Amino acid sequence: MSVLTLLTDFGTQDGFVGVMKGVIWDICPDVKIADISHQIKPQNVMQGALALSRVAPYFGNGTVHVAVVDPGVGTLRRAIAAEIGNQLYVAPDNGLLTLLIEDAEEKDIPIKIVELQNAAYWLHDITSTFHGRDIFAPVGAHLAAGIYLKELGRPINDPVRLIFPQPTKTATGWNAEITLIDHFGNLRTNLPAENLKGNVRVRVLGHEINKLTKSYGRSAAGDLIALADSGGFLEIAVANGSAEKELGAQAGDLVEVILNG
Amino acid sequence: MSVLTLLTDFGTQDGFVGVMKGVIWDICPDVKIADISHQIKPQNVMQGALALSRVAPYFGNGTVHVAVVDPGVGTLRRAIAAEIGNQLYVAPDNGLLTLLIEDAEEKDIPIKIVELQNAAYWLHDITSTFHGRDIFAPVGAHLAAGIYLKELGRPINDPVRLIFPQPTKTATGWNAEITLIDHFGNLRTNLPAENLKGNVRVRVLGHEINKLTKSYGRSAAGDLIALADSGGFLEIAVANGSAEKELGAQAGDLVEVILNG
Amino acid sequence: MSVLTLLTDFGTQDGFVGVMKGVIWDICPDVKIADISHQIKPQNVMQGALALSRVAPYFGNGTVHVAVVDPGVGTLRRAIAAEIGNQLYVAPDNGLLTLLIEDAEEKDIPIKIVELQNAAYWLHDITSTFHGRDIFAPVGAHLAAGIYLKELGRPINDPVRLIFPQPTKTATGWNAEITLIDHFGNLRTNLPAENLKGNVRVRVLGHEINKLTKSYGRSAAGDLIALADSGGFLEIAVANGSAEKELGAQAGDLVEVILNG
Repeated sequence: MSVLTLLTDFGTQDGFVGVMKGVIWDICPDVKIADISHQIKPQNVMQGALALSRVAPYFGNGTVHVAVVDPGVGTLRRAIAAEIGNQLYVAPDNGLLTLLIEDAEEKDIPIKIVELQNAAYWLHDITSTFHGRDIFAPVGAHLAAGIYLKELGRPINDPVRLIFPQPTKTATGWNAEITLIDHFGNLRTNLPAENLKGNVRVRVLGHEINKLTKSYGRSAAGDLIALADSGGFLEIAVANGSAEKELGAQAGDLVEVILNG
Repeated sequence: MSVLTLLTDFGTQDGFVGVMKGVIWDICPDVKIADISHQIKPQNVMQGALALSRVAPYFGNGTVHVAVVDPGVGTLRRAIAAEIGNQLYVAPDNGLLTLLIEDAEEKDIPIKIVELQNAAYWLHDITSTFHGRDIFAPVGAHLAAGIYLKELGRPINDPVRLIFPQPTKTATGWNAEITLIDHFGNLRTNLPAENLKGNVRVRVLGHEINKLTKSYGRSAAGDLIALADSGGFLEIAVANGSAEKELGAQAGDLVEVILNG
Repeated sequence: MSVLTLLTDFGTQDGFVGVMKGVIWDICPDVKIADISHQIKPQNVMQGALALSRVAPYFGNGTVHVAVVDPGVGTLRRAIAAEIGNQLYVAPDNGLLTLLIEDAEEKDIPIKIVELQNAAYWLHDITSTFHGRDIFAPVGAHLAAGIYLKELGRPINDPVRLIFPQPTKTATGWNAEITLIDHFGNLRTNLPAENLKGNVRVRVLGHEINKLTKSYGRSAAGDLIALADSGGFLEIAVANGSAEKELGAQAGDLVEVILNG
């Protein structure tokens, strides 16, 4: 029994996700379905790409990930399926897979990508507004049922890539950026925590934190802390509170790191 | 392995839905469960009926849909199960199935409905406040496990029906109504898109849109557009934005369509 | 096929829950997973304990419940697994299981608890911030796959217990407390409904209700009512409305019950 995941910006009120499950199980009755998130901010491809790249590695070989954050639905943007290492992906070609592709390239993991062209694996009636239901769900289900990637369309090697902001080296350390604010109001940055050696001070939105903490619970409730998050990046948090609310933080805000200062 | 869907107004914070799954799997361990929506507005039977009727057709034969939006729980309102075409439904008898029944009647699809009377298929202790757990979930599970509809109670042919507002023909086109506002803030109307031929202008809340667009992505971000939604009805949207917020729209608001004007 | 449930305060936007499902199915591919709630208020162990204790009894024998509301993650707080009657539990040792343990003690149901020590059943790399993914999910999956509780670590008999506020007897009846406000804005109290015999008046936040009602639907919309909820406790509600909003109620607020007054 294979596993298929769903990541979308569809929310959960309207049945958009439920209908995709109907389509999937009608094609591949044995597949298990895991919801990754349906609360990606509308049309925020970058947030979707970040969430997917952190979650996918924890799924087993053969998992099919169907990701639909798709501001270009119904335009000429391509739709793609990809085999990256031992997992499969189906998504609009808008950069949702950028981080997974770049990570695989760095590690010399094989990547195959095809453009979805073979309508035999889609629903019969294709709308211009809901390819999640009409194309991505059925293609994902067929992959979970065992068809080969090459059946879906022609190989391509120029998938759209997003440019993610990178931390920059400064005279005294790093300038990083808040990439994502999670459910707890923790501020996730783009600075890999492996860069945080020796004495570390962190400045963010007029506050300074003068050391790294190991976990939320080791500080007094309400303390502003810096730590390595569960994905291996620098994170700013308020112990048992919300750094987002406390600091009025937003994605994109600057985080300065001073090393051995 | 059969499929069972759940549609409720229970929200997801309290475990009301989780407990239904416990009851269902205890009776029918092999059934797969898909959540359609648990964010139907409290007691909004009409919204539940609209969501269910759009989603059900995409599920396979034999699917059991359990729908619980139930302001009359614990009163003398009946509870029913229905076989409509090749799918099964369990719900309070308050109109939740209206659109499915009317659609089947129009297409001469067979309909059987029974009143739930046989307590052998319910939990042992029935509360007056949570028939979703005590009656609808176990009945749905027994149906998924293969019992016949007629085992559940006596046949009826007078299910409660809701009156849904219909679009009206005008001298110049149609007067339609916003029926549902989705997660993206798109405004779904009750006008079947097949009525939109030739030149089309749409007036809504003081704005005028002078053509139909094919999809969200074909317009500049922020544009107010009119298009056929994925269910085949006229929809008003803001490309990469929220028409709900932009227009201050609410369900029930008037949408005027002028044809060939 | 066994069943595993998840209850957390993780929300559903970031993929924290999805990643746990990936870990679980990679270890135990056949287990069915039910979400109880991921909307427990951040770090609110008491709310998690209340929700879990109401839901668990409706699941079948052998169900594994993984509950993670864990303000102490990454500190020296213990992690535990428990066998209580015919079900299994995995959680931080912070009182999440208090109500289940106390209920079992009252009914002389056998309880076994172990501290999680055997890292062979955890993920290889353990972070200090996400034991839900790294420890609790894999341990739950191994239990679902059939390993014995005793393999996980040494037996303990001093689990952390929370003190839940108890209703107190007064000269005229009871002083109870709002323990939980549900999705509908219904106010659930800590007074078992079996104490409500004879004439009952209920005072809450300056309002008085002069009888018990059997269900929401038996009153006119907007009426403030008192009834026994689906878990067997006194509840205050507004028929087809929100008592939370109507009364400005909060968890902890006093509810006075006058019997035969």
